[in-house]
Amino acid sequence: MMATYYSDRKCISATEKMNTNSSNMMALAPNTSKKRETVCIFGTGDFGRALGHKMIQCGYHVVYGSRSTQISNLVPKDAEVLSHAEAAQKAAIVIIAIQRQHYNFLTPLAEILRGKVVVDISNNLKLNQYPESNAEYLAQLLPGARVVKAFNTVSAWALQSGALDASRQVFVCGDDTEAKEMVMNIVRALGLTPLDQGSLLAAQEIENYPLQLFPMWKFPIFLSLGLTAFFFFYCLALDVIYTYIYEHNNFSFFIAMTIPNRICPVVALILLGLVYLPGVLAAIIQLYRGTKYRRFPDWLDKWMLCRKQLGLIALAFASLHAVFTLASPLRSFVKWRNAKPIISQALNNKTEPLDTTNAWLSDSYLALGIIGFFFFVLVGITSLPSVSNSVNWREFRFVQSKLGYLTLILCTAHTLVYGGKWFLSPTAYKWYLPNIYMLSLVVPCAVLVVKFVLIFPCVDKPLTQIRQGWERNPKSSEQSNYIINKSAV
Amino acid sequence: MMATYYSDRKCISATEKMNTNSSNMMALAPNTSKKRETVCIFGTGDFGRALGHKMIQCGYHVVYGSRSTQISNLVPKDAEVLSHAEAAQKAAIVIIAIQRQHYNFLTPLAEILRGKVVVDISNNLKLNQYPESNAEYLAQLLPGARVVKAFNTVSAWALQSGALDASRQVFVCGDDTEAKEMVMNIVRALGLTPLDQGSLLAAQEIENYPLQLFPMWKFPIFLSLGLTAFFFFYCLALDVIYTYIYEHNNFSFFIAMTIPNRICPVVALILLGLVYLPGVLAAIIQLYRGTKYRRFPDWLDKWMLCRKQLGLIALAFASLHAVFTLASPLRSFVKWRNAKPIISQALNNKTEPLDTTNAWLSDSYLALGIIGFFFFVLVGITSLPSVSNSVNWREFRFVQSKLGYLTLILCTAHTLVYGGKWFLSPTAYKWYLPNIYMLSLVVPCAVLVVKFVLIFPCVDKPLTQIRQGWERNPKSSEQSNYIINKSAV
Amino acid sequence: MMATYYSDRKCISATEKMNTNSSNMMALAPNTSKKRETVCIFGTGDFGRALGHKMIQCGYHVVYGSRSTQISNLVPKDAEVLSHAEAAQKAAIVIIAIQRQHYNFLTPLAEILRGKVVVDISNNLKLNQYPESNAEYLAQLLPGARVVKAFNTVSAWALQSGALDASRQVFVCGDDTEAKEMVMNIVRALGLTPLDQGSLLAAQEIENYPLQLFPMWKFPIFLSLGLTAFFFFYCLALDVIYTYIYEHNNFSFFIAMTIPNRICPVVALILLGLVYLPGVLAAIIQLYRGTKYRRFPDWLDKWMLCRKQLGLIALAFASLHAVFTLASPLRSFVKWRNAKPIISQALNNKTEPLDTTNAWLSDSYLALGIIGFFFFVLVGITSLPSVSNSVNWREFRFVQSKLGYLTLILCTAHTLVYGGKWFLSPTAYKWYLPNIYMLSLVVPCAVLVVKFVLIFPCVDKPLTQIRQGWERNPKSSEQSNYIINKSAV
Repeated sequence: MMATYYSDRKCISATEKMNTNSSNMMALAPNTSKKRETVCIFGTGDFGRALGHKMIQCGYHVVYGSRSTQISNLVPKDAEVLSHAEAAQKAAIVIIAIQRQHYNFLTPLAEILRGKVVVDISNNLKLNQYPESNAEYLAQLLPGARVVKAFNTVSAWALQSGALDASRQVFVCGDDTEAKEMVMNIVRALGLTPLDQGSLLAAQEIENYPLQLFPMWKFPIFLSLGLTAFFFFYCLALDVIYTYIYEHNNFSFFIAMTIPNRICPVVALILLGLVYLPGVLAAIIQLYRGTKYRRFPDWLDKWMLCRKQLGLIALAFASLHAVFTLASPLRSFVKWRNAKPIISQALNNKTEPLDTTNAWLSDSYLALGIIGFFFFVLVGITSLPSVSNSVNWREFRFVQSKLGYLTLILCTAHTLVYGGKWFLSPTAYKWYLPNIYMLSLVVPCAVLVVKFVLIFPCVDKPLTQIRQGWERNPKSSEQSNYIINKSAV
Repeated sequence: MMATYYSDRKCISATEKMNTNSSNMMALAPNTSKKRETVCIFGTGDFGRALGHKMIQCGYHVVYGSRSTQISNLVPKDAEVLSHAEAAQKAAIVIIAIQRQHYNFLTPLAEILRGKVVVDISNNLKLNQYPESNAEYLAQLLPGARVVKAFNTVSAWALQSGALDASRQVFVCGDDTEAKEMVMNIVRALGLTPLDQGSLLAAQEIENYPLQLFPMWKFPIFLSLGLTAFFFFYCLALDVIYTYIYEHNNFSFFIAMTIPNRICPVVALILLGLVYLPGVLAAIIQLYRGTKYRRFPDWLDKWMLCRKQLGLIALAFASLHAVFTLASPLRSFVKWRNAKPIISQALNNKTEPLDTTNAWLSDSYLALGIIGFFFFVLVGITSLPSVSNSVNWREFRFVQSKLGYLTLILCTAHTLVYGGKWFLSPTAYKWYLPNIYMLSLVVPCAVLVVKFVLIFPCVDKPLTQIRQGWERNPKSSEQSNYIINKSAV
Repeated sequence: MMATYYSDRKCISATEKMNTNSSNMMALAPNTSKKRETVCIFGTGDFGRALGHKMIQCGYHVVYGSRSTQISNLVPKDAEVLSHAEAAQKAAIVIIAIQRQHYNFLTPLAEILRGKVVVDISNNLKLNQYPESNAEYLAQLLPGARVVKAFNTVSAWALQSGALDASRQVFVCGDDTEAKEMVMNIVRALGLTPLDQGSLLAAQEIENYPLQLFPMWKFPIFLSLGLTAFFFFYCLALDVIYTYIYEHNNFSFFIAMTIPNRICPVVALILLGLVYLPGVLAAIIQLYRGTKYRRFPDWLDKWMLCRKQLGLIALAFASLHAVFTLASPLRSFVKWRNAKPIISQALNNKTEPLDTTNAWLSDSYLALGIIGFFFFVLVGITSLPSVSNSVNWREFRFVQSKLGYLTLILCTAHTLVYGGKWFLSPTAYKWYLPNIYMLSLVVPCAVLVVKFVLIFPCVDKPLTQIRQGWERNPKSSEQSNYIINKSAV
């Protein structure tokens, strides 16, 4: 029964489709088993058993090392269960499926494990929980063993069910190349993709990896949430509270659609400006210093590395703005507002002619917004991993820089045309505060003005020279750190 | 002439761009040819010739084995054509480009092929057409040969034209590791990506692979089509036929836009509920059994494996609903319906004030729908293979589970706010049947209620313990199958 | 300070996430360095230094070969700087980080470099700048060296900053398999993905690769821009100038929204027709010739290879059309135009009943357009590299051909229903010119009609036979080129 169940799970799982027609007869025929080597697994917990099952399916002979050889009804049928020492002696590869805090029981086995490939698959509960990685700690405990870190990013459930959506990649690291290659062969045989991450020093990072939750996204998300909150209360004050106090209108329902649709474009435009601001700052710094061989300040470095995330969040806000705007004719408030002038025209018995200036303005800002959004989406699509992997560096830079600036120009123009007429109108300054779309223009306009100055030949020429390695004051680089600071991608 | 044509097709085709500038001079210079080994191909059909051409381009020396050595004007110019026996003797690798029903002619050659790498590239016309795979059958016919299955997923046309959009992956399997490695080297040399699928047992699956047509999608697609058909006739009856009979209105044009836009959200919401229902059921089963070490019923297992497909189809229906809704102000029916109250207000010489409650309701359900759809799209984007491969398991689960539930909550709330007022209205029950949006709420509300119960500490605590391996009744697992049933991703 | 900066850049960069938590302690401990071999780099320019730094981080011992051993404050601290000859003697792998025009200084070193792996990483400034590739030129200069081409697609800045979005792939080629494998091991150790491109003949193409800017997209983009320009002036003449001359209306604001929204669907439909036209032409040619074993004309071959790009640009135009259309109710011109009949109804004191025919027409073309666009997007999504890689050939063809034709049919029907009534109206022929939507129908209708004829059994049967290899006039193939012409994917 157990074997039946497992045999309809496939070993070959390179594509999802292949995972699916589970009716094939991939029986665990003995002639397959003998093809592959024997692997020893220490520990019969969930992961140890799941891994063992998968390996048996793929033709390996699996020996479990366990304190008690009696708990075995959960252990795969075709596997042997022996004592730790006996099991280890049967195989060249020993997988340690045990938590780090129990590693010290391995010390007496150090002699048996000498020269063997010992695979550390453990994870921690917190980032940087211990001073050294589990794999390095294991290597210290077993000085003669060839320790390899692997499999820690794979979930036991995914391994068994074949639903390996997020975990086909197995990071492998270790100091012994041959040992690493042996482990990578097992990884490949299980239908997973090994990624050689270098020496055992990389284990810390590999162990931290499955604990991370979008680390690169944290700052951009907090920033955008902060901006959103700020502008929400700003709008609430000006659009709802001010109106209620001075005009006695209850526009509290603005909270649902009007205010979100005011916040979204503002945050999107500011974030888009912030994507291109560090490049401009970097150029100014390089011009001022007269060399590219000095490190940028740390904040600028970090900022530059999260531009992609900032841009994608800006795109998300821009998309929301687009949908909110397109949905606005469905709102009962908008229907009511649109009906008012029609009824008044009918009651006054006259038909107003078309205001051509107004038609120009309304069509222009809509067209600018639509085309800006179109290019924004295009830039966003090239950020998809599979698309950016299939373009070369020149193409990537063309899209991200040229099309990105075009997007910024179009979106800034969209905002300017939309709200330009209000800059001089006193009603736009309720409580002496500017309307939020004015605030949204500060960053992008600053970026565009500085960028415009930077493309003047008198500025562009020295900058290009600096980026090609020229130094205004060559001796300055002697105190500097070595780094190629090439700013705007 | 022939050689000219071939020389402007490139051998290196790792990226599409590289496939394209066909003006380079990758001539079939003899000094390249000598770099690579000789390969023998049995059969001069389309695929045999296409493969031979490609291999010659990449520097291999190709020898065809053929019954007649005279048909050769279609065979690549630089290839030799010999009898089967002679050709086989010239190479270490023999590719069998012949259909399975003619394999028995190989029996006399068994001695010559002993020890050679024999590559089976055949496909069948139907899934599981023969009891054993073609490659295994070949291995039985040639007991001494080292049979490797490969190339069956590549199309001859794609191989020649370089338009390898859907077939860069070459699944390779075989019992002899060294033989497999030799074949994988050829695959790599041709600019394709070999995927080692394990022992020759995998050949059956590899042979079935190119015959499949979205196997994982079949059930979800049929389910959604069934639901669509049911709700179409339900709406037709209530919205068109009922109205025609009792109100004498001809609303047959509802078939084009109104009814589709009623079906889409309903099917989307039901399918989204069905994505999260199996997780909830699994939790209940685990709580009831008090252990995770027993297999789920088969239907639940299969259901869980097609959740991604269900979710993506739900997203497709939700997208259609969004576009249908946004396009509705363009409909001449909607324009006419919107004009009616305006005209009546004008005729009655009064301007109705804004109904704030109505504005709140209309804005709320629009905002809920927009934000729900936004998160739905976000979850959909992380289902793209390249995106899901670049996140870790924790991140994948966060998006698919947390954001997925948020989507479900928002979409259910959107439907409730939209139609809530009609629950108590008798006009919503034409022919004593409920309106379809009421039907759409059954599954998602049930899922949300049970999920809400499941996160209560008194329920969540034992469930978490069970999932960590605790068993209420440990002996029960002795009769059970071994499986880690971890439900809701 | 320098070391500190570098140590917080990681060597393992297989995923972006791993590139990010830069607080880990991947110190350049001496015990790692000794694990990997010594690598020599000739040249201390930007790329040489960046590569050296990265290699030191990953545990290699790096020796720079330089004319002067004094310029070394920019060179990584842990690297040695020696004369070229001394440096080369210390390592089995020598990376030449020098521009091609200075290669001749290597001639005296030919004896020292004999048998060593010499890696050419150079790029040119123009496509096909020299008759032979830099790597082949290097191989001529150093007859005894094992020249390998690699790393030329990686940017120095990306290598250092870890922002390897567009350049994780490293194309490797060379005539010596072992040498290539050694270089590919270094590539893997640096966290990059090596792609074996075959013999050194591929170097020309690899060197051209980073200079390319969307080569496959050039023709489709120019074609669509040409069509756009033509239709822009066509619309300008008919909609703005004609109206101004004969009706004295200033509709110049049509330039912003109305005309773009007329051009977009027309260009999209024509391009979509052009995607399927070559397949239909190919079928006619095959039927006429009675064989598939003759090459198609060159233009048809090239046309077929850029169908994907044509289709994606068509999708872009269709998306713009969709957004322009959905945004139209927001236009002040449209609001004014919609208000006119309402006001006139109110003034005339009557309410017009619903025109059911009109409602049917308006709803039908909207529904056809929406569903056509939906399938178009679906086809577009399967063009994403990661999606098309995870489907098999049969599935890819199903989506691209079946769903593609369905899209073409739906979009053509959408246009026909939208404008059908105007075909007979004389007002549609201003200046005796047809309205542009009539022009847009020519190509798609022609394709659909011919395709319809091609699926008749009396035509389909011989075509299928021809595609399976049957020839009407077998001797004809003797003068022909060998090629499998399989047309419509």
